[in-house]
Amino acid sequence: MDGPYLLFLGDARDDLAAKSAKGVLVWRPERCLAQMSLPGCKTTLGLTEMTPGEAAAKGAKTMLIGVANAGGFIPDTWTGSIVASLEAGLDVGAGLHARLGDIPAVKAVAQRLGRTLYDLRHPTREFAVGKGSKRPGMRLLTVGTDCSCGKMFTSLALEKEMRKRGWKADFRATGQTGIMIAGDGVSVDAVVADFISGATEWLAPANDPDHWDLIEGQGSLFHPSYAGVTLGLIHGSQPDAMVVCHEPTRAHMRGLPDRKLPSIKDCIAATEAAAHLTNPKAKVVGLGLDTSRLSAADADTLLQRTADEHGLPACDSVRTGVAAIVDRLA
Amino acid sequence: MDGPYLLFLGDARDDLAAKSAKGVLVWRPERCLAQMSLPGCKTTLGLTEMTPGEAAAKGAKTMLIGVANAGGFIPDTWTGSIVASLEAGLDVGAGLHARLGDIPAVKAVAQRLGRTLYDLRHPTREFAVGKGSKRPGMRLLTVGTDCSCGKMFTSLALEKEMRKRGWKADFRATGQTGIMIAGDGVSVDAVVADFISGATEWLAPANDPDHWDLIEGQGSLFHPSYAGVTLGLIHGSQPDAMVVCHEPTRAHMRGLPDRKLPSIKDCIAATEAAAHLTNPKAKVVGLGLDTSRLSAADADTLLQRTADEHGLPACDSVRTGVAAIVDRLA
Repeated sequence: MDGPYLLFLGDARDDLAAKSAKGVLVWRPERCLAQMSLPGCKTTLGLTEMTPGEAAAKGAKTMLIGVANAGGFIPDTWTGSIVASLEAGLDVGAGLHARLGDIPAVKAVAQRLGRTLYDLRHPTREFAVGKGSKRPGMRLLTVGTDCSCGKMFTSLALEKEMRKRGWKADFRATGQTGIMIAGDGVSVDAVVADFISGATEWLAPANDPDHWDLIEGQGSLFHPSYAGVTLGLIHGSQPDAMVVCHEPTRAHMRGLPDRKLPSIKDCIAATEAAAHLTNPKAKVVGLGLDTSRLSAADADTLLQRTADEHGLPACDSVRTGVAAIVDRLA
Repeated sequence: MDGPYLLFLGDARDDLAAKSAKGVLVWRPERCLAQMSLPGCKTTLGLTEMTPGEAAAKGAKTMLIGVANAGGFIPDTWTGSIVASLEAGLDVGAGLHARLGDIPAVKAVAQRLGRTLYDLRHPTREFAVGKGSKRPGMRLLTVGTDCSCGKMFTSLALEKEMRKRGWKADFRATGQTGIMIAGDGVSVDAVVADFISGATEWLAPANDPDHWDLIEGQGSLFHPSYAGVTLGLIHGSQPDAMVVCHEPTRAHMRGLPDRKLPSIKDCIAATEAAAHLTNPKAKVVGLGLDTSRLSAADADTLLQRTADEHGLPACDSVRTGVAAIVDRLA
């Protein structure tokens, strides 16, 4: 996808609904030109509000749908903005379950004008099944005690810190927001089940011996909806190192009110056991805590206590950065 | 799919290539009317060889492609037989990666004549994500130390034994051959990765408290290509009971010459640990050994020794039947 982007917020009901747009803005601010909202939008990126025509005149190349609703579909109220973007000369990208090309009006306009529609959630190629054999290069995978607990942010922060030190490092995106940020990747939860580990092997191929792939984790081995995806990702990554991510204020597993989160200790043990199938040396090397819901003082205390308890560096990718984890790998 | 079937063997290069047809014949002989081979076919089912016209005249309703080649595609040399079957009045079913409807000649004839094409490997509906919550009814899942080590046969033998005793029991098919035998099911390895456990929950829904679902397992927690599918299947099944299947003469994991099989003991431990996420009472209740490559004496010795070693009934679904496992459940 070509930047810069016009980020579409639609009628986002809260900040969380626009988390894809926010992720792109945090990690690739240089690609974010403007935002476009619909009446009733309850969030903002703080960018200038532009129409597709205004954004195109300022150099925008792609309109990116940075908002999601619960069903992952594309409501009728968005179609006008999508068509207007195509007519203004922009390509359009989305990371939803529904496909842009399945909306007849959108498909017709894109075809007529020769614009590209990017359905980032849907793999555009076929994969081989995973082989589980060792390949050169080093890999770090983020895993979590739950879904949506900072795996993407931690992976991106590790890439940034490693590159700052002159290391060879690439973030490998496995979800739609990550793909929007990286510009490519594979949405592994949308791959046919037989090919989860194979798609991951493709995503993080053989590389220089001193090169790090920072692979974005998905789901959790402890989440009954998605653990299969997580396990395939672990086996395909063959991680040398893993970072366990955790959101300390969460009362239950995401989407499952009756199910408690595992302890960090249990998550470390289960993750290392699973990873040893394809890399007997795989080790958890750090902890990533999302402390955004805590005060600075409480966050500091918790990070210190967690680090002491597990004998591992404990970082918040936003609040503290992840230098302590990279130090340990050095 | 309506029976009886005309089973298509194509130009099968050996018995293994026709294992789907053989599975249907073993488990649903009453639905198998005749076979149809091409020149060069190296196997037989022992059924009468018929043309589509002859089979239709004898009452056949569906031509079932019971042969697979390595790539899962449909070679041009089969198209004539498929078209001839449609023209003779038969529907056509296949369980390959390739879809019957993607062959223009086949699609055109099926549409013109109003015949149904069944692509059994490809889910025809959408699933919700798994919830992991307890539902009524009892479930038994077969798991394995590797792929292709008797999980389907063991599940079907358990259904047969339970029904013989007057128990309420249903085989739940999760692969293409199983679906051919059961007449329905979900090929879970072809489901989008996010929905593995959800598809399994759909396949084995709430039922009478004294009803057993016998769920066909797939892959192995120890197979780096497919462990994600296996884990999602375990979590979605919420099995009360599990049977570990094993092929004692196999030198390495299927398709991976450098990878040894796990021990039965390690497989029991890993499977129970994984299953406890959605059913803390899940337990391995028996072992299913495929002793077809052993002499009767060696098989007897091995079954006895394995049963003693693990303190569990050890059966071969073909050689001994699975009464000992059902006894334990009773």
